[in-house]
Amino acid sequence: MDSLSRPPIAAIILAAGKGTRMKSNLHKVLHPIAGRPMLLHLAASVAALAPVRTVVVTGAGREQVEAAVSPLGIATALQAEQLGTGHAVAQAEAALSGFVGDVLILYGDVPLVSSQTMQAMLDRLNAEDAPVAVVLGFRPADAGAYGRIIAEDGVIAKMVEYKDATPAERAVDLCNSGLMAVRSADLFALLAHVGNDNAAGEYYLPDIVMLAAADGRRSAVIETGATEVAGVNSRGELAVVEASWQAQRRAQAMTDGATLIAPETVWFAHDTAIGRDVVIEPNVVFGPGVTVGDGAVLHAFSHIEGAKIGAKAEVGPFARLRPGAVMGEKSKIGNFVEMKKAVLGAGAKASHLTYLGDAEIGAGANIGAGTITCNYDGFFKAKTIIGEGAFIGSNSALVAPVTIGAGAIVGAGSVITADVEADALALGRGKQEARAGWAKRFRDAMKAKKAKA
Amino acid sequence: MDSLSRPPIAAIILAAGKGTRMKSNLHKVLHPIAGRPMLLHLAASVAALAPVRTVVVTGAGREQVEAAVSPLGIATALQAEQLGTGHAVAQAEAALSGFVGDVLILYGDVPLVSSQTMQAMLDRLNAEDAPVAVVLGFRPADAGAYGRIIAEDGVIAKMVEYKDATPAERAVDLCNSGLMAVRSADLFALLAHVGNDNAAGEYYLPDIVMLAAADGRRSAVIETGATEVAGVNSRGELAVVEASWQAQRRAQAMTDGATLIAPETVWFAHDTAIGRDVVIEPNVVFGPGVTVGDGAVLHAFSHIEGAKIGAKAEVGPFARLRPGAVMGEKSKIGNFVEMKKAVLGAGAKASHLTYLGDAEIGAGANIGAGTITCNYDGFFKAKTIIGEGAFIGSNSALVAPVTIGAGAIVGAGSVITADVEADALALGRGKQEARAGWAKRFRDAMKAKKAKA
Amino acid sequence: MDSLSRPPIAAIILAAGKGTRMKSNLHKVLHPIAGRPMLLHLAASVAALAPVRTVVVTGAGREQVEAAVSPLGIATALQAEQLGTGHAVAQAEAALSGFVGDVLILYGDVPLVSSQTMQAMLDRLNAEDAPVAVVLGFRPADAGAYGRIIAEDGVIAKMVEYKDATPAERAVDLCNSGLMAVRSADLFALLAHVGNDNAAGEYYLPDIVMLAAADGRRSAVIETGATEVAGVNSRGELAVVEASWQAQRRAQAMTDGATLIAPETVWFAHDTAIGRDVVIEPNVVFGPGVTVGDGAVLHAFSHIEGAKIGAKAEVGPFARLRPGAVMGEKSKIGNFVEMKKAVLGAGAKASHLTYLGDAEIGAGANIGAGTITCNYDGFFKAKTIIGEGAFIGSNSALVAPVTIGAGAIVGAGSVITADVEADALALGRGKQEARAGWAKRFRDAMKAKKAKA
Repeated sequence: MDSLSRPPIAAIILAAGKGTRMKSNLHKVLHPIAGRPMLLHLAASVAALAPVRTVVVTGAGREQVEAAVSPLGIATALQAEQLGTGHAVAQAEAALSGFVGDVLILYGDVPLVSSQTMQAMLDRLNAEDAPVAVVLGFRPADAGAYGRIIAEDGVIAKMVEYKDATPAERAVDLCNSGLMAVRSADLFALLAHVGNDNAAGEYYLPDIVMLAAADGRRSAVIETGATEVAGVNSRGELAVVEASWQAQRRAQAMTDGATLIAPETVWFAHDTAIGRDVVIEPNVVFGPGVTVGDGAVLHAFSHIEGAKIGAKAEVGPFARLRPGAVMGEKSKIGNFVEMKKAVLGAGAKASHLTYLGDAEIGAGANIGAGTITCNYDGFFKAKTIIGEGAFIGSNSALVAPVTIGAGAIVGAGSVITADVEADALALGRGKQEARAGWAKRFRDAMKAKKAKA
Repeated sequence: MDSLSRPPIAAIILAAGKGTRMKSNLHKVLHPIAGRPMLLHLAASVAALAPVRTVVVTGAGREQVEAAVSPLGIATALQAEQLGTGHAVAQAEAALSGFVGDVLILYGDVPLVSSQTMQAMLDRLNAEDAPVAVVLGFRPADAGAYGRIIAEDGVIAKMVEYKDATPAERAVDLCNSGLMAVRSADLFALLAHVGNDNAAGEYYLPDIVMLAAADGRRSAVIETGATEVAGVNSRGELAVVEASWQAQRRAQAMTDGATLIAPETVWFAHDTAIGRDVVIEPNVVFGPGVTVGDGAVLHAFSHIEGAKIGAKAEVGPFARLRPGAVMGEKSKIGNFVEMKKAVLGAGAKASHLTYLGDAEIGAGANIGAGTITCNYDGFFKAKTIIGEGAFIGSNSALVAPVTIGAGAIVGAGSVITADVEADALALGRGKQEARAGWAKRFRDAMKAKKAKA
Repeated sequence: MDSLSRPPIAAIILAAGKGTRMKSNLHKVLHPIAGRPMLLHLAASVAALAPVRTVVVTGAGREQVEAAVSPLGIATALQAEQLGTGHAVAQAEAALSGFVGDVLILYGDVPLVSSQTMQAMLDRLNAEDAPVAVVLGFRPADAGAYGRIIAEDGVIAKMVEYKDATPAERAVDLCNSGLMAVRSADLFALLAHVGNDNAAGEYYLPDIVMLAAADGRRSAVIETGATEVAGVNSRGELAVVEASWQAQRRAQAMTDGATLIAPETVWFAHDTAIGRDVVIEPNVVFGPGVTVGDGAVLHAFSHIEGAKIGAKAEVGPFARLRPGAVMGEKSKIGNFVEMKKAVLGAGAKASHLTYLGDAEIGAGANIGAGTITCNYDGFFKAKTIIGEGAFIGSNSALVAPVTIGAGAIVGAGSVITADVEADALALGRGKQEARAGWAKRFRDAMKAKKAKA
């Protein structure tokens, strides 16, 4: 079947579970992995398949889930009672009314399933033998209490819950991830026949496979690695999934030509973009929205979020770049420096103990140690503009709004409240005075006081 | 046996070993795990059983050990010569004179044994079959040269040192941890018969089991995991025990409802208390004495010790809280900020490059970037008081003792040495002056000088 | 053979490979491990054997390689075309002209081979049975596609490339690292007969073993661990080799008597020297050139490079020591403090938010929070000298060149541009003034403005 004749695609994402074991006020599927809610990882992978419709089935905490997905144009369907996965999928029927095509059934708490795997499920559904359903199976290190899939040559003979399985069936290590691809017409027709005559009184989605089999229609299983279908039911499992995402991303960064001296100590966000010959020292944390240019060096203990780092720029150690930080080529942000909504021109440097907020700094400018842009008056933020090649002396406070002209010099320890002309020197500090012998007298007095105390 | 009729409990902790392999001037059992000396971990677990007496047997470096335990009301007994574990326990006899009950024998360098395991040993000692001794066994991944326990159904047939064991005995993987529970009367009576007729010329504690067996009295073994009885004889083993303590604590924190993005990079202290829905980013280090309220966020690279963090407060990245730091609800301590013996009111913020020491800061106050409380004159510490809603301009120095009234504003770059009234503006900075063209002339002169040099 | 009668030694290091998989503009063998280029690790291990000559065979990017090794007096030989390892070694013949002795053949991208292993290869070459060549073998966890060595009692029967191996040969897990020791006369004579009649059309170095065998001359294999001969062909493999170097170094530091609370988070440089009873908290990064004295404490999140730390000194957390930092006994560099080309006297302290550059600070001096040495005017660096026992008030700027006399006090918030006499008090700050009620009027105006906006 060529891609033009492929059936349209819809996705149903189940997200109605309470997530009690998370012990959280935040809905389980909204807990982030790599800085992005789990559910949105999945939504992004689904979106890559260009589905005509995506429906999230919600339950407890549905307001949180709706608020997260509605900006993406994703519909929701309410499962008011928790009556099992089959029941949950059935709640999406109205939202898919009129849709005819292939349906992917996914889980909001199984966030790392890739578009490639989803596509493979759909490809199998549309293979020549046209199985009624495609189930995604996996072989975990410890199959434990997972439902088992008894299959031959990828065709399912039986799906069985662990508690109902015979010892021989339990010895099978092919497990059911729960993910499935089914044609819309089959899906809802079969679900209508699923019963709840079992210990839990629940409607089980996998039952559609056995119902179809009773009609002589076969289903297929394809396999993936256990890591890809890892589920999140607790904070511990959240950490495990985060770790596997990070491990994959770190390996990719190295393959693409970045040096990670201690890869296990670099935390990427879902959208971090890293150039070639970038060096990342131990302990660098990326928040969302970061681009790092070729040849940049990120020293240890740097925290970078929403920032654009130019080619051959140098960051840290102990640097914090916040959203809106833009560093030009070969510019430098050094230790104990924070930068926010600020542009640092090519070759400009702020090497030590500085806060640059709401600022524009020209190429080649030198910002001395301890410089503070005073950008906030308690009500409004204001801007500091520093011209090309200007030199800001150490420990200066630049009270915004203020402009320092190109090539100007600000003397160390100055408080600058008025604009400084290009090429001028500005000073704003007290005059030095001395009191000879005062320190000795003070010490003597203090020693006496200490002796008494 | 119900708990009211339980015999009284005493504990003997052996801590006379030299610990040569630690290569340290600090006594081996005083090296810390999770910020608390090993020996005190053990003492705390013992204390949970409410023993009537605890004796630490000391040898080399006994002054250090005595100084550590005497504040806890724990007695010490000197083992002047190192003549084996049996000899060491015998030294505690005088300190236990008059005591009749169950004795636990523990090791100062086996610090992670839990109260639950100790209780299980005592429970077994008081079971119906009343064994003369209860030995704590374990099955390590590699049994190596540990002494072996030959037992059937938990009853010991033989205890044998590795070097004396037959190949069949060496094939047994149940090993002797050395920990034991014995009734006081039996213990010292049996020890009196232990000889030192062996290669090392030492008196071995486990010999009491075989001596009792010769009298037809049986001993029992109960088992625990190898991690719990891991011993510390080198800094490498210290790191291993620290790591296993941390792994357990991290898992507990997640189970209790905290998110640890990279659990392997969070180091707890022995007494850290964490609320629900707390988020801990990678690389957070806790010293002793920290409480974190519900919903607080601890950003990456934070170092927190002796601090109380209010609900929904925000810390870091790159924050340091030292003893006496108390953060109110929804308050914020940001990057490159240090706080010590200071109270930050609800909603108050110190976001950047600030030192707050010996200070009281009212609710809703805003402490600008680069603010320093000058709390020390070289002899005495003095206090800074900042009222509710006050606004401290950036790069200000507040010279204590000083009070800034509620709602007052301090202009950026000020040095404040006198109290400021509520709602007043205070300034203390030099006047700005400018010298047109000076910077250009300076640069030209310097370039000429560089050219010459 | 006693060491005096040992033949002279030469080493050939192959470094002509392109390293395409590194995706780097830096030559593969120059990527650093523990802060030192791979090739120089190997060169240092070779140098310990006191070879009379070392030749690096270069190819692509040879200028970079030559620049790195020529300062060490190491010769290079160009392999213009990549025609296999045998061909590469042959290129070194001219550079070894006149040399008669034992030749070690090493690989620039196999950097962790120790002097001990190299010596063991030479020892074997000079053993009584005088093998024509000694090959270094290893047994990896997964032998994969490595060439196999078929040997009995350390004598090689056959060396076979994986693709030419029979199933029985592939089942052998002794693999060829490629490293070899051969007498110079044999080496070049045999290489002259190596052909390139194989699939790749390359001249293979291991063929000399089989050529010699055809003449009835036997070669030997000695074994080492797989970690020691790990090769680097990608950034991922670079990280693996870095990790194994670090693991070894951390274990050594603990054995030598340092406490590493979380050893896996401490990164040493190749030349870090650590005293006894040093405590290193989690997350400390060492660059090259660091010495740490006995009893020093390095708190978490410290970055240390080119620094000498005195006995019982205290560093961090969040400290950065840069090249030329020298800390006296019991001195202290605290949080958010940077030190560069500066000497801190015994017992002196800079505890918070400070930059000390190009400075000499006397014993017992106290540098207040927020102090900046203003050492740079945009063209030249100048020096700050602070006498013994001086007290620098917080938030001061010391504009170099400047001298603060012994016992002098600088008032908080001062800008100091002129020398201060011993025992004097110096002040250089604005006078405090107040405007009653101003803050309230400002707030009212701003609130009105906000309401309009």
